[in-house]
Amino acid sequence: MIKVGVVGATGYTGVELLRLLVPHPEAEVTVVTSRKEAGRRVDDLFPNLRGHLSQTFSNPDEAALNECDVVFFATPNGTAMKLVPALLDQGVRVIDLAADFRIKDTEVWSDWYGLEHACPDLLAEAVYGLPELNRSAISQARLVANPGCYPTATTLGLLPLVREDGLIDRSHIIADCKSGVSGAGRKAQVGTLFSETEENFKAYGVAGHRHLPEIRQTIELATGEPVGLTFVPHLTPMIRGIHATLYLRLQTREVDLQALFEKAYASEPFVDVLPEGMHPETRSVRGSNTCRIAVHRPQGADTVVVLSVIDNLVKGAAGQAVQNMNIMFGLEEELSLSLPALLP
Amino acid sequence: MIKVGVVGATGYTGVELLRLLVPHPEAEVTVVTSRKEAGRRVDDLFPNLRGHLSQTFSNPDEAALNECDVVFFATPNGTAMKLVPALLDQGVRVIDLAADFRIKDTEVWSDWYGLEHACPDLLAEAVYGLPELNRSAISQARLVANPGCYPTATTLGLLPLVREDGLIDRSHIIADCKSGVSGAGRKAQVGTLFSETEENFKAYGVAGHRHLPEIRQTIELATGEPVGLTFVPHLTPMIRGIHATLYLRLQTREVDLQALFEKAYASEPFVDVLPEGMHPETRSVRGSNTCRIAVHRPQGADTVVVLSVIDNLVKGAAGQAVQNMNIMFGLEEELSLSLPALLP
Amino acid sequence: MIKVGVVGATGYTGVELLRLLVPHPEAEVTVVTSRKEAGRRVDDLFPNLRGHLSQTFSNPDEAALNECDVVFFATPNGTAMKLVPALLDQGVRVIDLAADFRIKDTEVWSDWYGLEHACPDLLAEAVYGLPELNRSAISQARLVANPGCYPTATTLGLLPLVREDGLIDRSHIIADCKSGVSGAGRKAQVGTLFSETEENFKAYGVAGHRHLPEIRQTIELATGEPVGLTFVPHLTPMIRGIHATLYLRLQTREVDLQALFEKAYASEPFVDVLPEGMHPETRSVRGSNTCRIAVHRPQGADTVVVLSVIDNLVKGAAGQAVQNMNIMFGLEEELSLSLPALLP
Amino acid sequence: MIKVGVVGATGYTGVELLRLLVPHPEAEVTVVTSRKEAGRRVDDLFPNLRGHLSQTFSNPDEAALNECDVVFFATPNGTAMKLVPALLDQGVRVIDLAADFRIKDTEVWSDWYGLEHACPDLLAEAVYGLPELNRSAISQARLVANPGCYPTATTLGLLPLVREDGLIDRSHIIADCKSGVSGAGRKAQVGTLFSETEENFKAYGVAGHRHLPEIRQTIELATGEPVGLTFVPHLTPMIRGIHATLYLRLQTREVDLQALFEKAYASEPFVDVLPEGMHPETRSVRGSNTCRIAVHRPQGADTVVVLSVIDNLVKGAAGQAVQNMNIMFGLEEELSLSLPALLP
Repeated sequence: MIKVGVVGATGYTGVELLRLLVPHPEAEVTVVTSRKEAGRRVDDLFPNLRGHLSQTFSNPDEAALNECDVVFFATPNGTAMKLVPALLDQGVRVIDLAADFRIKDTEVWSDWYGLEHACPDLLAEAVYGLPELNRSAISQARLVANPGCYPTATTLGLLPLVREDGLIDRSHIIADCKSGVSGAGRKAQVGTLFSETEENFKAYGVAGHRHLPEIRQTIELATGEPVGLTFVPHLTPMIRGIHATLYLRLQTREVDLQALFEKAYASEPFVDVLPEGMHPETRSVRGSNTCRIAVHRPQGADTVVVLSVIDNLVKGAAGQAVQNMNIMFGLEEELSLSLPALLP
Repeated sequence: MIKVGVVGATGYTGVELLRLLVPHPEAEVTVVTSRKEAGRRVDDLFPNLRGHLSQTFSNPDEAALNECDVVFFATPNGTAMKLVPALLDQGVRVIDLAADFRIKDTEVWSDWYGLEHACPDLLAEAVYGLPELNRSAISQARLVANPGCYPTATTLGLLPLVREDGLIDRSHIIADCKSGVSGAGRKAQVGTLFSETEENFKAYGVAGHRHLPEIRQTIELATGEPVGLTFVPHLTPMIRGIHATLYLRLQTREVDLQALFEKAYASEPFVDVLPEGMHPETRSVRGSNTCRIAVHRPQGADTVVVLSVIDNLVKGAAGQAVQNMNIMFGLEEELSLSLPALLP
Repeated sequence: MIKVGVVGATGYTGVELLRLLVPHPEAEVTVVTSRKEAGRRVDDLFPNLRGHLSQTFSNPDEAALNECDVVFFATPNGTAMKLVPALLDQGVRVIDLAADFRIKDTEVWSDWYGLEHACPDLLAEAVYGLPELNRSAISQARLVANPGCYPTATTLGLLPLVREDGLIDRSHIIADCKSGVSGAGRKAQVGTLFSETEENFKAYGVAGHRHLPEIRQTIELATGEPVGLTFVPHLTPMIRGIHATLYLRLQTREVDLQALFEKAYASEPFVDVLPEGMHPETRSVRGSNTCRIAVHRPQGADTVVVLSVIDNLVKGAAGQAVQNMNIMFGLEEELSLSLPALLP
Repeated sequence: MIKVGVVGATGYTGVELLRLLVPHPEAEVTVVTSRKEAGRRVDDLFPNLRGHLSQTFSNPDEAALNECDVVFFATPNGTAMKLVPALLDQGVRVIDLAADFRIKDTEVWSDWYGLEHACPDLLAEAVYGLPELNRSAISQARLVANPGCYPTATTLGLLPLVREDGLIDRSHIIADCKSGVSGAGRKAQVGTLFSETEENFKAYGVAGHRHLPEIRQTIELATGEPVGLTFVPHLTPMIRGIHATLYLRLQTREVDLQALFEKAYASEPFVDVLPEGMHPETRSVRGSNTCRIAVHRPQGADTVVVLSVIDNLVKGAAGQAVQNMNIMFGLEEELSLSLPALLP
């Protein structure tokens, strides 16, 4: 059994990790930390875990974490980078669900996150944990930077198109993304109160959102050239789900888009390309690790529309993290991630 | 492997059954029927099942159902009673998720359901499928009448109190129940449109609801005396969940209510009695087969308040049906039902 | 024009007051205060008021409030009592939407609110602002204690029954109440985040809620005898609306309940008794000052069920406060409160 | 008083018209028709109108409609065109909230709506009822084609940009639009059930939606040249509201976009251009006739992002229809439309 620690497990990403790890046949949750809730039973905070987990939150005590085989960080940005070097030194492998290790360029990172990086030397080593792109590197990694939720849905929708030279105009890509409210986390704030978000729809961060440089970096690394991306996130009144609607301009009409996507993801267990003409629904992936994608070319014009949905807490966070763990430890990749979504 | 048929699988109870049966290690879904959708792939209607189920809806063809070990009926009331006798004759066991076999008295049944019963002779044999009450009989049953959603939440909350002679006034029991909208099913009707039910709360059926005689019958059979029950159902704007708030008048003050409930359900895998003072939330059981119960005596007065929550589609329908199947076939009772609820 | 001040206008009760006062033909909002938002335009915080109100939040400056004809307090409990005596001394009339002046007995008040009262001498003078009960006193009042949301819906549903001697058992009244989330206010807290309350239903405060002594006091004053009340509030996933389901035991069967209610409210502009057999919906009063009530006697038994709905922010707070203002200043009672509810 | 008839008032557009017409000081609702509900009181179907409207639904009887000064059609597409010619002959003015008179080209209309047009000769005369574009023509019109909901939000967001020659690339405009569920109407269908749409987000009609030719026609008429438009509608789990996110490519950088929009709508009572950097929320216009717009140029690049929100039932349907009536009859344009939105 793999001994697992979860640091900062009081948020939605944390409880979702625990939900997926509890029934995992090869993993055992041995440490769950929270400074704020230390001493409280985890299932007192998250009653869905009653009968499934008897752990108590502990202070993030290095000794105990050192005995883990892998530690997940479900902490706010800027926390993991302070603790990770010591853990790696002890031979513990790390999966960070925050943004500390996602951006390769420390200046870019500091610009967007407003912090100085605590261990820039680890950035080159950290593997961006999108298995569909980096499976092999992940399997060897000591440190995995789990992708953001918007970047996961967006990147999986863009990759088959942008990778083909000359297929689309890489300088003008539009990602119009919509997220459920759980993406904003479980912290006390007015903006995500029920009465502020229910029966309401809005864009936010149009001037610039932290997931923009993350998506751009991935696409630029995959294509080897600069990319022009307009990324507009929106908040939609539901708990879970991300829907990315992507607009790209074709530079050739001689392409079978459906075949391109089906081929790209033919062997991927967690990417499902829908038959031509369909529209994916976020509820079809609720609670599951699947990304569902459809590709359209309305009225046969030169604009491609890609629709990509995930559950932001699963494929967009905890599920992808468990998928990465499975890959890192040579387990079957679908372990604990193979159940159908909850519909309705 | 148990060969399983699901009749009428186009509703919410049907898709939930399939979600739970697909990963079941001892069951195999061999037949899925729907007159209306015959010929269509099941996962085309329910895309959460893509990659999990390759079946196509078939017409309810007796031949194929005859080869099943067990058939679930997820049909409207009045359908199962026409098909069940022939299946039983062929040695097929049946679990009916509708109301056809719940009421022992055919006159009462006809009064509430407006139909003449097609096989009244089977009513005595049918076992009311509440495992916490009838586990032993279920294990021997050919025909199980799976309880209604309101009755499951209400009965589990009432049983520990009403079974004790002299503890409460059985002639004046109040069940104020609230249900999510999925309880009304997946049929085209104005009353359960999003724009009719969102941001709205209402009572309905105060004059009389079909679950009233069902609850009353169970309590009267358990206590051996007539029961006075006021049952008021309400519709609340969420998909899943039932919350029963039960009011009973104590006839003695010499009772440890918390201990009474804990003892009653000490060995039940799917009933969780909360610590004193807590309030169960419906989301803590979303997608799971658990019933969570708390018991209160506000201000130490003589009114007991019991709070009982279930997921109406799981413990209130499909999950309980799978639990019954597990019992009927001598399997571990928690098979395919042991995962934590989805929270948030 | 009546000069109006609103103290503490950053919450939901505050913005709702402004929504109703802006178009009021006889009132003019002259002061809007908030310590936290002082200096910010009100319509920057509440963009629905753009084009309707050019005020800026000011610090609660006594001088400016002194020049008002009436001041509304939309502040947390315990704030108004510190400022009200000085305002009354200046001849300013006050309507407090918090609980500072609702309870006549200071000891009871202190027990439930955990504070010592700052001006107990004003409690006898304060008029409980339920116009259907105290219209005449309100018209003469300097200080009106605007009722709570649950108490408004519950009391209006109970009054016709409890006032009749011998009609019902006053020692065992049950009020099972459900509220939208806006009742919890616009403050940063985890418990009312969207992802904590959406798709969830729960009871809370079963051991005791501050609205219990308020309801009990009103009923006891109206009947002149002690009352036994069990009050259980629940949170339901919608923004606005309260639904009270009230259970009382009849002590006589010789009563026409429908006629009793219709007569009781025949001349009330904001209480609508539904025809026999109907169920009121909270959405039918969204944004309006109406209380809709239906009375049932299920199966002709001795339990009466009363259903009573209001919009918690209107008849349960800001609308009732404006109604009280209209009465206090001899205006037509329905001014600015006469529009139909927003449905859907 | 203007005598008003409403044909087909059983849908959401119909009840919203009645909500706005009931308090209108210069209009009187004299006829409300519905074949299906003929003989039933309107306030029995829509209880928010209890106490406000005593009308009964009647069969669409030409005689009674002939005596109206104006008739609103809130009917399904294809109904108004059969009745309008006779009404116009009688001197009755008509505002059609359906699509019968929106498209000038009958062939285009027939292609998208699948019907032959019953009175193509009236199409040239019909005025497209977007007051911000056609106020003067509306004031003289006998027949107004009230715009669709998506077209209203989208067109108001596009007009200031597309009208300037050379400012943006008119051949590649993207409109990513999100609508609440009430836009799909009040008809019995599975797709808009609560349990199908709650906690779900999806695109639909990507291959082609009827509002595409409508938007394109307006922009082409305004600019005099062909327009390339990609229009993707999405369904978001809320009752009311449309959010249009518009992407256009600048052809010059020498433009003050904020000033352009502010100037374009400086004198418009129902278009509110937000200060630079803000994001409009749909709830800020709930129940009101306002369109709120913000314009952004993320990272100073050449892609303009316009955010435009309306309440689909008000500015997107019934409110704009009343605005058109006010203009047609020489009334103050804001009559009965001047109240703040309901927030929260």
